[in-house]
Amino acid sequence: MKKISGLFIAFEGIDGCGKSTQAEMLYRHLKKSGYPVRLVREPGGTVLSEKIRRILLDPKSEIRPVAELLLYQAARAQLVADVIRPALQNGEVVVCDRFYDSTTAYQGFGRGLDQKLIARLNRTASYDVAPDLTFIFDVDYKTSLARRGKGGKKPDRLEKEKKLFFNRVRRGFRSLESKRRVILLDGSRSIETLFEPVCQKSELLIKKRIKKSV
Amino acid sequence: MKKISGLFIAFEGIDGCGKSTQAEMLYRHLKKSGYPVRLVREPGGTVLSEKIRRILLDPKSEIRPVAELLLYQAARAQLVADVIRPALQNGEVVVCDRFYDSTTAYQGFGRGLDQKLIARLNRTASYDVAPDLTFIFDVDYKTSLARRGKGGKKPDRLEKEKKLFFNRVRRGFRSLESKRRVILLDGSRSIETLFEPVCQKSELLIKKRIKKSV
Repeated sequence: MKKISGLFIAFEGIDGCGKSTQAEMLYRHLKKSGYPVRLVREPGGTVLSEKIRRILLDPKSEIRPVAELLLYQAARAQLVADVIRPALQNGEVVVCDRFYDSTTAYQGFGRGLDQKLIARLNRTASYDVAPDLTFIFDVDYKTSLARRGKGGKKPDRLEKEKKLFFNRVRRGFRSLESKRRVILLDGSRSIETLFEPVCQKSELLIKKRIKKSV
Repeated sequence: MKKISGLFIAFEGIDGCGKSTQAEMLYRHLKKSGYPVRLVREPGGTVLSEKIRRILLDPKSEIRPVAELLLYQAARAQLVADVIRPALQNGEVVVCDRFYDSTTAYQGFGRGLDQKLIARLNRTASYDVAPDLTFIFDVDYKTSLARRGKGGKKPDRLEKEKKLFFNRVRRGFRSLESKRRVILLDGSRSIETLFEPVCQKSELLIKKRIKKSV
C-alpha cells in the first residue's frame, strides 16, 4: 500500500453552520495558491456513493436508523477507497465537506445508536484514513433555521422533536472538541471572520507537508 | 417489544443450489396446509431494500467489498425491522431465501473480509433475530454452472478466479454445518428428494409452535 503523503481536512457541523461555504473557500484559496487540492463531499463523490446519496436524501425514503448508518458507511467506504485515499497517497490536499464525525453526531448522538459500533464502522469504512485537521462549526438551532430560510414559523410537535434532535447532534459535535485534530469555531460569526482561522490553521499544516504543484 | 412467537426458516447456498425452488415449495406447502406464512428474499422485500438490491445486482456497479458488505447489511436491517420481525411477532412462519449466512460465506469467506466484523454486523442488522432453522444446499462448481445454464465453455482467467471464489464461498457455507439450527443437504439431488427433509424438519418445528390460521 502506497504511503499517504497528502493532507486531509474535514469540515463538520449542522446544516446551516457555514461549513460548505468555508470548505469551498479553502479549496479555491489553496488551488489559487498552487497546491494540488481536491474538494469532496459526503455522502457522494463516486457513482455508487451518489446513488446512495439520492436514496438517503430523498424525502420519500423510509429508512430505519440502522439502515441509515450502514448506507452512510457504504457511501464512505467507496469514496475513501476510490477517491480520498488515492489522492492522499498522491500527495494532494483533500478538503471534505462532512466526514465521519457527522456519523458520530447524527447517528450516534442524534439517533442514539451504539457509539462503539459507530466508531468501529467509522474506522472500517474509512480504511483507517483519518482527517489531519477537522473544523467543526458550532451554531444554535435558531441560527441554523434562519440560514436555511426556515425561521419564523411557530414550532409544532414535529418542530419540537426536530429541535431536540438538533440539540443532541450539536452536543455530539461539541463532544469532539477534545480531539487534537479538531478546531471548534463559533459558526455564528461572519464568513470572513471564520475564514481567517480556517485558512491559517490549514496553511500551517500544508506548508509543512505539501509541495506546490506549480 | 412484542415477543416473537413465529418461526423463521432460512434457505442458503450458492446460486444454482436449488434453495429458491425449495423455499417456494415450502411456502406453498405451508400455505396450503393453512399456516400463516410469508416468503421473503434477500436482498429485497422493502422499498429501500429493493433499491439497494438493484444497485448490488447491477453488473455495471463498481462496488468495493466493504461497501458491498454494508449495503447488504443495510438492506437486511430494513427488511428485518419492517417485515421479518413484525411477522414473527405476529406468530407467522417466515421463509427467507438467503439470510446472514450468505454474508458470512460470500463477504467473509469469498471476499476475505474480517469475520468478527461480519458477525457483529449480522447481529446488528438482524436486530438479533436469528433463524430457527436453516437449510444449506451444497453443490459443486460444475452443478452450479450447469443449473445456471453456463456450463460447456472452457475456463478463462476470470472463470478460474470465479471457481476459486466459488470454492471459498462453498467452504464458508459448509463451515456452518456444526450450528444447531443448520441442516446441510446435498443440493445435487432431485427436487423431490430434497423437499422431503425440508418439509419434514420444518413441519416438526412448526407443529410445536404455530397455530393454523384456518
